[in-house]
Amino acid sequence: MIGVGVIGYGYWGPNLVRNFADLLSVDLRWVCDLQTERLARLRSRYPAVSITEDIAQVFNDPKVDAVAIATPVSTHFDLAMRALKAGKSVFVEKPITATAEQAERLIEEADRRGLVVAVDHTFIHTGAVKKLREVIQSDLGEVYYYDSVRVNLGLFQHDVSVMWDLAVHDLSIMDYVLGARPRAVSATGMSHFAGSPENIAYLNLHFDCKLMAHVHVNWLAPVKVRRTLVGGSNKMVVYDDLEPSEKIKVYDRGVTLDPMAPKAGERKNQMRIGYRAGDMFAPQLDITEALGAELAEFIACVQRGTKPTADGAAGLRVVRILEAATASMAKGGTLVELPQERVFA
Amino acid sequence: MIGVGVIGYGYWGPNLVRNFADLLSVDLRWVCDLQTERLARLRSRYPAVSITEDIAQVFNDPKVDAVAIATPVSTHFDLAMRALKAGKSVFVEKPITATAEQAERLIEEADRRGLVVAVDHTFIHTGAVKKLREVIQSDLGEVYYYDSVRVNLGLFQHDVSVMWDLAVHDLSIMDYVLGARPRAVSATGMSHFAGSPENIAYLNLHFDCKLMAHVHVNWLAPVKVRRTLVGGSNKMVVYDDLEPSEKIKVYDRGVTLDPMAPKAGERKNQMRIGYRAGDMFAPQLDITEALGAELAEFIACVQRGTKPTADGAAGLRVVRILEAATASMAKGGTLVELPQERVFA
Amino acid sequence: MIGVGVIGYGYWGPNLVRNFADLLSVDLRWVCDLQTERLARLRSRYPAVSITEDIAQVFNDPKVDAVAIATPVSTHFDLAMRALKAGKSVFVEKPITATAEQAERLIEEADRRGLVVAVDHTFIHTGAVKKLREVIQSDLGEVYYYDSVRVNLGLFQHDVSVMWDLAVHDLSIMDYVLGARPRAVSATGMSHFAGSPENIAYLNLHFDCKLMAHVHVNWLAPVKVRRTLVGGSNKMVVYDDLEPSEKIKVYDRGVTLDPMAPKAGERKNQMRIGYRAGDMFAPQLDITEALGAELAEFIACVQRGTKPTADGAAGLRVVRILEAATASMAKGGTLVELPQERVFA
Amino acid sequence: MIGVGVIGYGYWGPNLVRNFADLLSVDLRWVCDLQTERLARLRSRYPAVSITEDIAQVFNDPKVDAVAIATPVSTHFDLAMRALKAGKSVFVEKPITATAEQAERLIEEADRRGLVVAVDHTFIHTGAVKKLREVIQSDLGEVYYYDSVRVNLGLFQHDVSVMWDLAVHDLSIMDYVLGARPRAVSATGMSHFAGSPENIAYLNLHFDCKLMAHVHVNWLAPVKVRRTLVGGSNKMVVYDDLEPSEKIKVYDRGVTLDPMAPKAGERKNQMRIGYRAGDMFAPQLDITEALGAELAEFIACVQRGTKPTADGAAGLRVVRILEAATASMAKGGTLVELPQERVFA
Repeated sequence: MIGVGVIGYGYWGPNLVRNFADLLSVDLRWVCDLQTERLARLRSRYPAVSITEDIAQVFNDPKVDAVAIATPVSTHFDLAMRALKAGKSVFVEKPITATAEQAERLIEEADRRGLVVAVDHTFIHTGAVKKLREVIQSDLGEVYYYDSVRVNLGLFQHDVSVMWDLAVHDLSIMDYVLGARPRAVSATGMSHFAGSPENIAYLNLHFDCKLMAHVHVNWLAPVKVRRTLVGGSNKMVVYDDLEPSEKIKVYDRGVTLDPMAPKAGERKNQMRIGYRAGDMFAPQLDITEALGAELAEFIACVQRGTKPTADGAAGLRVVRILEAATASMAKGGTLVELPQERVFA
Repeated sequence: MIGVGVIGYGYWGPNLVRNFADLLSVDLRWVCDLQTERLARLRSRYPAVSITEDIAQVFNDPKVDAVAIATPVSTHFDLAMRALKAGKSVFVEKPITATAEQAERLIEEADRRGLVVAVDHTFIHTGAVKKLREVIQSDLGEVYYYDSVRVNLGLFQHDVSVMWDLAVHDLSIMDYVLGARPRAVSATGMSHFAGSPENIAYLNLHFDCKLMAHVHVNWLAPVKVRRTLVGGSNKMVVYDDLEPSEKIKVYDRGVTLDPMAPKAGERKNQMRIGYRAGDMFAPQLDITEALGAELAEFIACVQRGTKPTADGAAGLRVVRILEAATASMAKGGTLVELPQERVFA
Repeated sequence: MIGVGVIGYGYWGPNLVRNFADLLSVDLRWVCDLQTERLARLRSRYPAVSITEDIAQVFNDPKVDAVAIATPVSTHFDLAMRALKAGKSVFVEKPITATAEQAERLIEEADRRGLVVAVDHTFIHTGAVKKLREVIQSDLGEVYYYDSVRVNLGLFQHDVSVMWDLAVHDLSIMDYVLGARPRAVSATGMSHFAGSPENIAYLNLHFDCKLMAHVHVNWLAPVKVRRTLVGGSNKMVVYDDLEPSEKIKVYDRGVTLDPMAPKAGERKNQMRIGYRAGDMFAPQLDITEALGAELAEFIACVQRGTKPTADGAAGLRVVRILEAATASMAKGGTLVELPQERVFA
Repeated sequence: MIGVGVIGYGYWGPNLVRNFADLLSVDLRWVCDLQTERLARLRSRYPAVSITEDIAQVFNDPKVDAVAIATPVSTHFDLAMRALKAGKSVFVEKPITATAEQAERLIEEADRRGLVVAVDHTFIHTGAVKKLREVIQSDLGEVYYYDSVRVNLGLFQHDVSVMWDLAVHDLSIMDYVLGARPRAVSATGMSHFAGSPENIAYLNLHFDCKLMAHVHVNWLAPVKVRRTLVGGSNKMVVYDDLEPSEKIKVYDRGVTLDPMAPKAGERKNQMRIGYRAGDMFAPQLDITEALGAELAEFIACVQRGTKPTADGAAGLRVVRILEAATASMAKGGTLVELPQERVFA
């Protein structure tokens, strides 16, 4: 049994609690939150779990092996570092930290102590994204573009921009499904409300290959859209997360290149670009709840001392892009190079 | 009766011919194209129309008052200038010319001679876009963003990028529906096929107000999308041109600003941003064919010596943005200021 | 505080328990089910609730004022009658009983004892159906037809046909939203699996007015459809329960009748039927959870001795139609008259 | 060259003319209509075609081999019979005649004279319906049901009910794609406008096998729906004619039958019905215009003396069902047996 404490019982915490409570290998010992009114219902539903407003109680409990942190981003680093220093593995909400430097320090601390750092990139544990990865890696051929739209009305955050709130999902998915890593980022965005972070943003990711990636996030859209298009030299995919069951559609469509009879005055060897349209295929998806699978993987990693799919390094890569995009946005959209990757193997 | 000649009988020319032929005020005298095989069917369908491969015949016919030009973009300027110099008004396919300087010269020539220059910004004559303009100008309040996605598979152009082929529609619509004019442009794009122009592009339009505009165009998408979101302080609109009848949906949705009780350590007077969701309304649209209405307006302008809705200046404004966006794309997405507008009243 | 016992903790019981537990006016005292393994989780989640396999304990508890019954249909009557005889008000899953005669007896027993009989017609407590009723009663004019499609894949029931499982929803909605009551029923259906009840069925409801109603239910459809069309002399409605937010769309569409110039040999005074198309309007809907509102209403009725919206008489009317439809289906679709309504005021 | 005359130039006639004019093997000689104003535009578009209001001219022209009839249904028989007696093959709009007896007489007359009778069941020449047939015959297994919804607003017909106008499409498609032929029909419908034929109707087709077919047609629906569901023992299909490209979707879904452990008191050998969900597949469809392919087939049949896919017998089978359904509707929905099929080989 792995002893677990959950810190933060706001929007996401109850989901962590419910899923940890369903894992037979978990002894859910603590839930900690500063707002006690949130914990009243918890008390009646999970009477075996201890409730506290004092995180020290969680860190001091020798039976706690791992801590899940579901608090505002600005507090992730302090809480996770305290947990690691207390000898606990950590599972941290996305984005893992508010800066790349903080993420690096967490990774180093965990590595030194042989503890696990996991980041809650929930989407990569869904059947849809696992299938997307499989399709991209085996069917698409050379990947030409990755284009995501993730817009809806609200919930405005007060402390982070729409990029840190929504684009983080796309970046974590890309980190998982694409073989390539971006070289540079540019971003534009706008806040329409004085004193608030950007509520609309566009990100461009630049790669060293023919791949181009773009993300549109918006808290102020009249309709909800969750649609990603990925085009390759052989096939193309639409991943629409709002489709009830056919979330992944693979199109046997693409471009044909035919040598073109040169017209007078034209260079020879020019190619005529045509296109071909073929069948569409929507594979059946695994519908296991992503968060449950993710937490089970985290607990198994704690037990065996292995790294989870979304480890600290994955969290760090995403934060590096968010940081660079924030810098680009502040400079009106100029290209910002991403740092050379420090390898955390 | 206004005597009309049509130059170019490729993809779009037949639509011009069909619509001119239906106008009672038009004497359709000439159709000119270099590929005679295209003209065979025309001959049997419109026996009263003269067919030629020699444009001089069109320009020399004193009964021709106006010439419609539906040839590749690179030829627009030469043909239109020759027409104007022969004393004919011109109706030119979009984009009006290959450079802003050419458009300026056409406008000057036409003004000097008291002739009409019209550009075929077809969309602004649709019931959907006319309603979009009306909604934006009377219901939306302050306009916060304009976001358009116009993607599909093919038809690749050999001489112009996807921006000059598809984004030109969005720019002409924005020119018509938005009160504001952009101050600067940035764009990124990519060609995935050696020797071909960009087949995917993203444009950002920057304004002097809170408005932000973005256009995504792509010739390599597995599905066809024609969707524009416009958000304002009072309402929001979705314009989906693929909807069979409900192309314009107006959402009574938006953001609410409430004074927020300051927490310890927070600045006072901070506002809590909430959102509100209300009814949706899809107005009935005028379904008259846009091109017919547009050509009727052009002919009326030739008769009366007035300016059409999409005059040379509108064509010029759109080409200026395309030129700036092309320059930005060549420089990796840097911001390119638009020239101070020379007024053509 | 109203003392409540829940009998049956299978598919729907947990929803009843969760919603009763959230009502401040409810003392949830008992949950009873024959399969104890289902109750294990309940025990940890709701430690204050007593668990039993013996319904007598529930009926004998003087602090229990009302019993909710979520067991198979064939057991509804016996359990509800025992509850009434023990002086408890009852809230019974749909359909209220397996026969109309049983429903009549429950109503009589409850009336004699001054107890409440409610049937769980959940849909009529949704924002969508409440709005549908409002639109039908104030905007549609004369109602011409009501057409519902409710199809999906599975879950096959072993004891009741797809009509008793799915059409019951449509019948309960119609009972609530339409002013008129059907006079006769015809139905066709088929079982494709030996020994199983019908898995596909079509019902026609005949009225004494111009109204015509039709329901298609199917457990063997590849896609899920939940769409109702209602046409009236002034407006038309689409109620699509799968739409995330615009579940109700009101169309200002209809038919126009113009006197027609009689042609040679035609009767005079014939009318030309045209149609008109106008705006569409999707009202914002109340999104309160229907079951919560329904149970709160039930509890208030128990407290005040009043009748709920879906009382025993509503349950009876629906069962009468199901019984008649079953009889029609057995006879190959012949028309079956509905019994004269016995009034339960 | 096959000489052709077209009789009737109203709604559909212009499509026949356009497609015949494009066939190289056709000498389009005559277009005949009683309303000369319709023919004015025809004259300018097809100057080589003779125009007349007198059908005798068409029938008397020895160079006319075949006549296409696109007039109101009530006139089909007389015109087609006159054409046959003048030695011309006939291509008749759907439904082929107003009564089955008329269709039988046409078939006999044509057989006696060695002429071709074709009926314009356009849909069976579309890529979608050809694929539907292929899927039903090779993938579905035993066909369980065929359910079609074909509804929209208007155009009301004055002489025939919505069944003869819209359901005729479904019946002709079923005739083509299903192996089985119905044994009996029942139908209900209603006219909401005095003196007008039924504007809403529901048809049930009964077969000698496990198959059940149902058609819903409606001229008074706020939205346009063209959706057919077909369920089989192995797979299921959705044919949605309004989808721009994915009109046919094949679902690897169905039912599983597992022997069920008998509970106390249950019959042994009962089967538990489960369901399985698998991939979805949307095959690429042939997008050739159906009418062009259909007319080319008709002309080839006239040249070779062979029978077209939709021959007189196909037209007759559809009219028999319409006649029986009309009789059933008049009797309030009673079952009407279809006549034993007279074989026309």
